[in-house]
Amino acid sequence: MTSPTLNIAMIGHGFMGAAHSQAYRVAPRFFDLPVTPRMALLVGRRADAAAAAAERWGWDESGNEWRAAIERDDIDLIDIGTPGDSHAEIAIAALEAGKHVLCEKPLANTLAEAEAMAVAAERARARGIRSMVGFTYRRVPAIAFARRLVAQGALGQIREVRGQYLQDWLSDPGSPMTWRLDRASAGSGALGDIGAHVIDLASYVTGLSVRRVSGTVETFVSERPLAGGRGLGASAGADEGGTGRVTVDDAAWFTTRYDSGAIGAFEASRFATGRKNALRLEISGDRGALAFDFERQNELEVYDATQAADRQGFRRILTTEPEHPYAGAWWPTGHGLGYEHAFTHQIVDLVSDIAEERDPSPSFAEGLSVQRVLDAVEVSAAAESRWVDVAGA
Amino acid sequence: MTSPTLNIAMIGHGFMGAAHSQAYRVAPRFFDLPVTPRMALLVGRRADAAAAAAERWGWDESGNEWRAAIERDDIDLIDIGTPGDSHAEIAIAALEAGKHVLCEKPLANTLAEAEAMAVAAERARARGIRSMVGFTYRRVPAIAFARRLVAQGALGQIREVRGQYLQDWLSDPGSPMTWRLDRASAGSGALGDIGAHVIDLASYVTGLSVRRVSGTVETFVSERPLAGGRGLGASAGADEGGTGRVTVDDAAWFTTRYDSGAIGAFEASRFATGRKNALRLEISGDRGALAFDFERQNELEVYDATQAADRQGFRRILTTEPEHPYAGAWWPTGHGLGYEHAFTHQIVDLVSDIAEERDPSPSFAEGLSVQRVLDAVEVSAAAESRWVDVAGA
Amino acid sequence: MTSPTLNIAMIGHGFMGAAHSQAYRVAPRFFDLPVTPRMALLVGRRADAAAAAAERWGWDESGNEWRAAIERDDIDLIDIGTPGDSHAEIAIAALEAGKHVLCEKPLANTLAEAEAMAVAAERARARGIRSMVGFTYRRVPAIAFARRLVAQGALGQIREVRGQYLQDWLSDPGSPMTWRLDRASAGSGALGDIGAHVIDLASYVTGLSVRRVSGTVETFVSERPLAGGRGLGASAGADEGGTGRVTVDDAAWFTTRYDSGAIGAFEASRFATGRKNALRLEISGDRGALAFDFERQNELEVYDATQAADRQGFRRILTTEPEHPYAGAWWPTGHGLGYEHAFTHQIVDLVSDIAEERDPSPSFAEGLSVQRVLDAVEVSAAAESRWVDVAGA
Amino acid sequence: MTSPTLNIAMIGHGFMGAAHSQAYRVAPRFFDLPVTPRMALLVGRRADAAAAAAERWGWDESGNEWRAAIERDDIDLIDIGTPGDSHAEIAIAALEAGKHVLCEKPLANTLAEAEAMAVAAERARARGIRSMVGFTYRRVPAIAFARRLVAQGALGQIREVRGQYLQDWLSDPGSPMTWRLDRASAGSGALGDIGAHVIDLASYVTGLSVRRVSGTVETFVSERPLAGGRGLGASAGADEGGTGRVTVDDAAWFTTRYDSGAIGAFEASRFATGRKNALRLEISGDRGALAFDFERQNELEVYDATQAADRQGFRRILTTEPEHPYAGAWWPTGHGLGYEHAFTHQIVDLVSDIAEERDPSPSFAEGLSVQRVLDAVEVSAAAESRWVDVAGA
Repeated sequence: MTSPTLNIAMIGHGFMGAAHSQAYRVAPRFFDLPVTPRMALLVGRRADAAAAAAERWGWDESGNEWRAAIERDDIDLIDIGTPGDSHAEIAIAALEAGKHVLCEKPLANTLAEAEAMAVAAERARARGIRSMVGFTYRRVPAIAFARRLVAQGALGQIREVRGQYLQDWLSDPGSPMTWRLDRASAGSGALGDIGAHVIDLASYVTGLSVRRVSGTVETFVSERPLAGGRGLGASAGADEGGTGRVTVDDAAWFTTRYDSGAIGAFEASRFATGRKNALRLEISGDRGALAFDFERQNELEVYDATQAADRQGFRRILTTEPEHPYAGAWWPTGHGLGYEHAFTHQIVDLVSDIAEERDPSPSFAEGLSVQRVLDAVEVSAAAESRWVDVAGA
Repeated sequence: MTSPTLNIAMIGHGFMGAAHSQAYRVAPRFFDLPVTPRMALLVGRRADAAAAAAERWGWDESGNEWRAAIERDDIDLIDIGTPGDSHAEIAIAALEAGKHVLCEKPLANTLAEAEAMAVAAERARARGIRSMVGFTYRRVPAIAFARRLVAQGALGQIREVRGQYLQDWLSDPGSPMTWRLDRASAGSGALGDIGAHVIDLASYVTGLSVRRVSGTVETFVSERPLAGGRGLGASAGADEGGTGRVTVDDAAWFTTRYDSGAIGAFEASRFATGRKNALRLEISGDRGALAFDFERQNELEVYDATQAADRQGFRRILTTEPEHPYAGAWWPTGHGLGYEHAFTHQIVDLVSDIAEERDPSPSFAEGLSVQRVLDAVEVSAAAESRWVDVAGA
Repeated sequence: MTSPTLNIAMIGHGFMGAAHSQAYRVAPRFFDLPVTPRMALLVGRRADAAAAAAERWGWDESGNEWRAAIERDDIDLIDIGTPGDSHAEIAIAALEAGKHVLCEKPLANTLAEAEAMAVAAERARARGIRSMVGFTYRRVPAIAFARRLVAQGALGQIREVRGQYLQDWLSDPGSPMTWRLDRASAGSGALGDIGAHVIDLASYVTGLSVRRVSGTVETFVSERPLAGGRGLGASAGADEGGTGRVTVDDAAWFTTRYDSGAIGAFEASRFATGRKNALRLEISGDRGALAFDFERQNELEVYDATQAADRQGFRRILTTEPEHPYAGAWWPTGHGLGYEHAFTHQIVDLVSDIAEERDPSPSFAEGLSVQRVLDAVEVSAAAESRWVDVAGA
Repeated sequence: MTSPTLNIAMIGHGFMGAAHSQAYRVAPRFFDLPVTPRMALLVGRRADAAAAAAERWGWDESGNEWRAAIERDDIDLIDIGTPGDSHAEIAIAALEAGKHVLCEKPLANTLAEAEAMAVAAERARARGIRSMVGFTYRRVPAIAFARRLVAQGALGQIREVRGQYLQDWLSDPGSPMTWRLDRASAGSGALGDIGAHVIDLASYVTGLSVRRVSGTVETFVSERPLAGGRGLGASAGADEGGTGRVTVDDAAWFTTRYDSGAIGAFEASRFATGRKNALRLEISGDRGALAFDFERQNELEVYDATQAADRQGFRRILTTEPEHPYAGAWWPTGHGLGYEHAFTHQIVDLVSDIAEERDPSPSFAEGLSVQRVLDAVEVSAAAESRWVDVAGA
């Protein structure tokens, strides 16, 4: 590859670190990129763990000081995959230091932080510094294709949106306490972790903005056993007796009103027994409909209400044709992509945008708008589910 | 058939009249009944139409006076299939006259009427007079089997309920005005017509009662063309310009809190493009889950979370085995039942209960409890979706 | 009903007797018929059983002499639902006596009988006497719609046919011996009983004729326990030790060459564990494809290869619209039909054809052509699966 | 990575070259390997294309002489992804030179070549040289899990196997001639290219061996337009008029008899309109059944016939749990793998076997047994589909 290089420093090396590393490694192999990402530096809190992860995932160097990474002249892009409570500090510092930033979702644990990040991103943008938030599911071919269909008018006037993100890893009340169930570190529970994705996808595919929400949140199991071996300690809310207190929601339900008059019904749950990663979207318009379930991510179901009455039906489209977004770079039709491919697509788009001086999407402003919806859901839930305006909408 | 006869008078002969007639005709053929229903008298508003319907559907006589039917000594059971605004008057009169009553759902158009009906039913019950409300979907084999599974503990502690009743016949804004869209005759829209079914089914299958609701209703299209040929006239809200005003909801969304702490999320819509009769129920517990969609009414999906981790999955059970409720009376396994079979099962249970002096279910009290949920949804919707207590719960 | 009456005598009252009775009873209720079928006489081998069945299924009279039925002047139509070994004798006598005949499939147990029946039917036809063989699945709305689609050219040039009829009631080697497993009474096993249906459907939907076949048949379990209580006796091949010998095939596989050059691959099995009544058809052409599974009989999957490449997919059409064959007479869209509805459609078409002096389809000649395919499969199987010409093709 | 290195030379860089390269790159990231594969040398026929491919796919060096690669002391493993007509020569030479060999399927274009390769592999094995044939689909988690289930007895006595590999890229008669349709280069058509996979999978999952076959092959479209731009030239059978002659089968159908008495029914087709990569397997035993379709590769359907009769059904298992083969190394449950992951698993197993001195599977002998089945199908097809013994079985 003789193309110029984009040097990456990635902060954090958990689940998202693995996915992002795979994306940097694979993107230039299957896509023609105007710049080549170089996996320069991996930063973690502990030097030894960061060094091991760097070797595991293929980073040239490792370190345990994210500020040092930001200060290095040879770093072009800061990729933030830490827990949400550190996003704002790192991202703002990086943007101010003139680094492009890719930040995992949710943008921040608090609305105030998210707003500050969006301001910083906007300011940096004036200097040609790019930023993006990692709503990766947008880059699943079926989802990107769904957006294209809507934009082409295939659904007509959209009336109804159904969004679900269903998992079941908490439905066993004996499953242990983790940092994800502690508000101090995780910010929120199912709502912020997985609900954020489905809010974003719904707006991305439909092009609509949420104006108001009415929401409910619930914690079904408020005490869970501490899994000693995993060192959750006091930060996870341990108390006497070997259990930890769950301080986030287990599930959330909310209704949304969009600017167009459309209405959405959403659910995010970790108690949906048997559903493993059922990120689902169904959109109903007066000319058609579409339905998606990430558990069958290579398929999009599309209904065309303008066909002859006896020929209408939900069409199961395998979104693996060369004509589908991203799909042509991979394998022959029907061969199927997996979870990490969307991360590769995200890197393809991000580094192309940086090289070609475009603003990537979703921007921090878009991430902020999701945060505002999440916040409004919590405000509504605390106010007996009354309708609440989404700030800025 | 040498068994004694139960003489039926049916009031109303629309869609439900056809379904009930089929049930009376077919039930004694496939099931051994302690009494034989006799299709004695069909009553409609207009004598000529009632006579034609009686011949079409096989009733011995016809008439246009429901009061006359009630006064006849040779009538044992009054079957009410008229629009909801006349249910209370007919049912109460019939019960007072000592007739058993089968009343279509929803029990009444107003809560006050429903309450009066439940009182009348309870009073009649003391005299051995039986009554039942027609939540027929309870008698779909997959649903009755679902209830059995829950009762056996197959789901463990139930946490979440998902209920949808999705149709799409209004998603075209050009589809015409009908009496079903006029509050004066229909009482409510999607909420009362189809939402009632899914509220009832969820409680029937889980055994749980709704304590509180937070709801939203919406009318997307408030003016629709009058279809002159169908004679909707002023009663359907016609105004100048050849359109009628829609005065009921097109769709409703609501969250429910059950007595056990479980939470339900519901939607009833006539705008769900591509969904024809998608009455769906999914119930999640800590030991298992089940999922049903009436568009595939011969199937129940069941998840057993107590199996080995690598063997868990949603099992598609064809509920056509002799071991499944009602199924053994029909065809060999896999041959499938249709919409009207549940009506036959309803008659089987009702006439058996009458003959064997049991109280049928769902009772008017159960019908009332559904009405109270519907009413609470409307109250909540009018109060910015605030949580509202369900009366009597 | 003031229309003229068509008087029916039905011979046999097993599984098919129940289905046919239901059809006669229901057809005039949901369809406008030019004549009204009257359930005049039910004939069985034993007078008492016939009398009980006549009462159960609603026939005016009963008897135990099929010849007497044929001789009665007041009988118009003989409906034959006996085991296959008596079809020829009854049908030919009835046709000669000037009665219309509906004969269950397969037409006969031997090719010679079937040929004689077709000759008799042709001769009777010259005198205005009608005959039909009961390949009832043709009247499932999804199947009749599939045929219409093919006829309209929706599939283009058909290349491949896949047909399966999968059941599993023999997969347990301990399930008992029955007359269906005895060649003397049943003629053949899975091949003739269920394979016949899928051969017929494939030709019906595609309009193609089978020219040659290469086939294999197998009996996996050749001895089965006698179920004493069910009185199978010597006719079922009982021998010492309480087991009976299975003398028919458990499963059959065959490849077909059609007159057009298309090729079909078929399987009929009673050992397909978990498949209950999976009558499946998939047809591939150069412009499209369709797929059907009777376990989801209200659906047809259709693929349109002429759409834009990114929009192609199998469309799940609910064949319950008024525009679909037969469906408009029943319930609103999405409400679903069951197994016996196709029998009702069969009676609707048969009595209409008789009243309006048309030849019904499938004719005995069509039934014969299926028999010839079945026969050729057995000949091929006995000749090391060599390709065998289908007689008359 | 401080583990020792296994130096790879890959011959060929088409579709399979891309897949294998991805596997070498990714395997050591997600799996702990006892040796680290080094992508040392990529060899193609043309030096410039090989150099470009080496840069694209990340190989250290490139060349255009496969013999030179074999002679290099610093190469440990030869990976053969060329067309089938060169497999034997390269593989035998490599084995004789003491190199481990991974050879793409089918093992060779002729049975004689495949036999020579198996002999060479066996001889090399005595010297500790390993070889493997690339039936990669064995390493799809659902397939590996299916084998485990069968081995545990979950299906009981297996009676029936259904295998299909359905694609549709030739169903348009205007789609162009390619080298894959020319017998000289491709050896055979659908039979050898995709039928080979499903033969292998069926034996792998069931543990059964094919003894006899009866087969049919067909070329529906024997002349196709030459796509000039793709340089097919004379080798693809060009003749005057701008079309090329198709000299391989478009589709094949065959029945198999296994050593155990089980029977299989197979189809391989490139004319199955709407099916993109439908590699399907269904296995029926007296205790259960399983069904798989690669178009939904993250799912396995399992039927347990030993459960209570009312609870039996096909269970859709998402094979993404840590308890499923290979799955634990990747993402959380429900996140899904794609086509290339099985290639990674293949490399994991191969390099582990080499390092730990085990014989990999599928061996060349196993590849040969598949070739023998393919050959017997063609022999049978040429002999009017008569049953033919599979050599060595």
